[in-house]
Amino acid sequence: MTKSLRRPASDAVDRLLNPRSIAVVGSLREARFGGYVTTSNLLRFGYKGKIFPVNPQYETVLNLKVHPSVRDIPEPVDLVVTMAGAPAVPNIIADSVHNGAKAAIIISDGFGERNEDGQRLQQEINRIAEAGGLRLLGPNTIGVANPAIGLITTPYRVTYEKMFAGGVALCAQTGMIGPQNLPLEETHYGLSKMCDFGNKCDIDEIDLLDYLVDDPDTKVIAMHLEVIRDGQLFMKKAKEVVARKPVIVLKPGRTRESQRAMASHTGSLAGEDLIYDSAFKQAGVIRVDNLREIIDIPKVLATQPLPRGNRLAIVTISGGVGVMGIDVASTHGLALARFSASTLEKLAAVSPVLASNPVDLGPGLPAYQVPGGVASRFPAMIEAILDDENVDCLAMACPWGVRGKIADVFGTMAQRNSKTMAVWVAGPSLAIAQEMNRDFEVIGLPTYPDGDAAIKALSVAVRYSRIKAESSEAQGRTA
Amino acid sequence: MTKSLRRPASDAVDRLLNPRSIAVVGSLREARFGGYVTTSNLLRFGYKGKIFPVNPQYETVLNLKVHPSVRDIPEPVDLVVTMAGAPAVPNIIADSVHNGAKAAIIISDGFGERNEDGQRLQQEINRIAEAGGLRLLGPNTIGVANPAIGLITTPYRVTYEKMFAGGVALCAQTGMIGPQNLPLEETHYGLSKMCDFGNKCDIDEIDLLDYLVDDPDTKVIAMHLEVIRDGQLFMKKAKEVVARKPVIVLKPGRTRESQRAMASHTGSLAGEDLIYDSAFKQAGVIRVDNLREIIDIPKVLATQPLPRGNRLAIVTISGGVGVMGIDVASTHGLALARFSASTLEKLAAVSPVLASNPVDLGPGLPAYQVPGGVASRFPAMIEAILDDENVDCLAMACPWGVRGKIADVFGTMAQRNSKTMAVWVAGPSLAIAQEMNRDFEVIGLPTYPDGDAAIKALSVAVRYSRIKAESSEAQGRTA
Repeated sequence: MTKSLRRPASDAVDRLLNPRSIAVVGSLREARFGGYVTTSNLLRFGYKGKIFPVNPQYETVLNLKVHPSVRDIPEPVDLVVTMAGAPAVPNIIADSVHNGAKAAIIISDGFGERNEDGQRLQQEINRIAEAGGLRLLGPNTIGVANPAIGLITTPYRVTYEKMFAGGVALCAQTGMIGPQNLPLEETHYGLSKMCDFGNKCDIDEIDLLDYLVDDPDTKVIAMHLEVIRDGQLFMKKAKEVVARKPVIVLKPGRTRESQRAMASHTGSLAGEDLIYDSAFKQAGVIRVDNLREIIDIPKVLATQPLPRGNRLAIVTISGGVGVMGIDVASTHGLALARFSASTLEKLAAVSPVLASNPVDLGPGLPAYQVPGGVASRFPAMIEAILDDENVDCLAMACPWGVRGKIADVFGTMAQRNSKTMAVWVAGPSLAIAQEMNRDFEVIGLPTYPDGDAAIKALSVAVRYSRIKAESSEAQGRTA
Repeated sequence: MTKSLRRPASDAVDRLLNPRSIAVVGSLREARFGGYVTTSNLLRFGYKGKIFPVNPQYETVLNLKVHPSVRDIPEPVDLVVTMAGAPAVPNIIADSVHNGAKAAIIISDGFGERNEDGQRLQQEINRIAEAGGLRLLGPNTIGVANPAIGLITTPYRVTYEKMFAGGVALCAQTGMIGPQNLPLEETHYGLSKMCDFGNKCDIDEIDLLDYLVDDPDTKVIAMHLEVIRDGQLFMKKAKEVVARKPVIVLKPGRTRESQRAMASHTGSLAGEDLIYDSAFKQAGVIRVDNLREIIDIPKVLATQPLPRGNRLAIVTISGGVGVMGIDVASTHGLALARFSASTLEKLAAVSPVLASNPVDLGPGLPAYQVPGGVASRFPAMIEAILDDENVDCLAMACPWGVRGKIADVFGTMAQRNSKTMAVWVAGPSLAIAQEMNRDFEVIGLPTYPDGDAAIKALSVAVRYSRIKAESSEAQGRTA
């Protein structure tokens, strides 16, 4: 389903993601879903713009004046967010046009994804919006988030208090990738923008690529795309974007069965999977395999310098995990770094059994039975490895002995590090591992659930590094 | 490195895993590693057999009488555990033979995995033990665990208080798969036996297969094997075992690079990977891909009935996740179940949007805005699916509305369920997801970090179900 004519680029996407004012249209009853929740989420996450709740049955809510309709709002708003029932939406869109709003998010479902009546309704709102110069996100979306300004439009209760601004732009076609479903606070996830496309009746992946490539807060663009509306245009745009920023895509629908399920759930048809596979490769888009990866892998690109080569150092707390890591590394195009004589010497000075790559901390444990424990010996070892000119990137397991001292031990190192690092913490308590992971994320070192995941993330960084270099070269030739 | 002559089967492996008495030989200093830690772990986890700490420098430790050497213990012990420095080990083994011990665990490192001197030392202890009829586990191991009797020999501090008895036997060639490194308590992991082979100078995977196939507590055998000492014998044994119990193997060393690393870390050489791949298939051994899988996948086989077919039902909280699940299902040989008319009716009675497979709870959410919330509607939906004769297995996402009520809502269902279930909980708090996962594990429903993992686990159950059927058939023909 390609779009016959794309509507012109505008600042509407900026108003969608950086609105100075928001109208919230929908039920204001205190419940687990609806306009009340969106309004209170905005207040709780510190959104500083104006909020106009809209509902004919209320006068005030959460100390805000409520307007009976969007038409009654006395000034043009940047963004209208509605979760009113589908049949009411065309009027709300007309009112939004009348108000002079720039963008609207239609959270409501029951449109193209439901049945033919819904498809007609979706076409109708599209017509009204297009005629009125209003851009639409959705329907059937949880909307957007922008932690830097406390923007969060999800109509679901969010159980935590804080989102963190960072370099990952996360776009998706599922509410699963939304603030209400991801532990963004616990994991200290650094987000530049978040956008759920929903049915994509208007604003889509092309608009977001256009916007995000110039967004200074965005270091890496991650997109979950069930449907790509205009494949050729997407690949063309993506090819331009990857010269400047990595684009990572999760594209489900590898099988006929899942393609059928997507059709019923988004109201659109997906194309042949193998074609996507090769088109992504040609465009320099990196395809990942699952939900966990589309969330975790971008972190390394958002926080770490790009690797200059593919030579990997592994620091592990178990020889067995080191071996598995080498399998992952080889499979994904990384080579095991050969440490320089000076690095081997420095490692051997801590304990002779440490002087090889992977560095297995397990047998070296007795060496840490010194005042200060592992935390006193670890930094010198890691610095020796990072300084080694034969090393491009480092996957590092962190022993629990460093718990509570991560900022002290790694803070400075993380700041002046010019190599690509990915970290994992494993051990007998999930709660402690989470705490340590969080401490690493706070100082800007990306964490992964295990060594395999850390190494795969590094391999993506290596791949993007090559893609970027080739892309600059190609542009150099063209210029 | 195959063994010229296997030592005869004996009850030594039973004494290793069910010892009535244990001698602990090593440093008794209060530290993070050593004999003191092993002794206090045994006491803390409620080991009821006799414990004999051994050290010439102490009289008592933890209110236990200390003997100067194993020779001085006044009765034969079932098991000797030593973490004394490698050069001291031959004497300790000789003393153990003299004592009449049945088995010894050599936790100490510095043997075959270190260098040629270590290899010679390893051969020496093997000679002494073999001559004296003593069986050895290790060296370079953290030993064994058996939650049912509070047995735990790891020399590392364990930060939790309880292990749970269950159906998974977990054998490994890495300390990573040991009680000190896995969150067994937090995840309520149900373990029958745990065994780290270490360098495998004597007791190996064949001995454990022999033992575990008859162990009534073991429902599934999971093995991480860097090296298989006698490939032909292993495949022969495994083929016999899989007629009765599933055997799941994680075999690293897919690449030359990792094979080299394994050689240095276990002191043995691995064989060609592709040969293993086809040999496993022929023997009916199921190979998994990584550390997470070797720990998580066996849970479904330990707790759930075997599926009678490959027809999968999916209950998801997001259409997008459902689509990804279908991709995983198709890739691993599962088919999406077609619900019967009666099931579709029952689902539609809750909400019309629920009447399809995958069942997407997301759009149906308003239907739960009833007294009792989602917990009041959910059981009837799940029971309808489980009762459907077109359904063989179910991957179920659990919404957070059921938090705190999992035993009430699913307890009875879990007990009388004759279909194979795997569960996952996702949401904005890792802590809450963990709590809910734990509540599911307590009532015997296996949990997975995401839908993909749950579905892959179910696909392994389906595969084993076929392997078992074919294996019985083949035996029927032979008889």
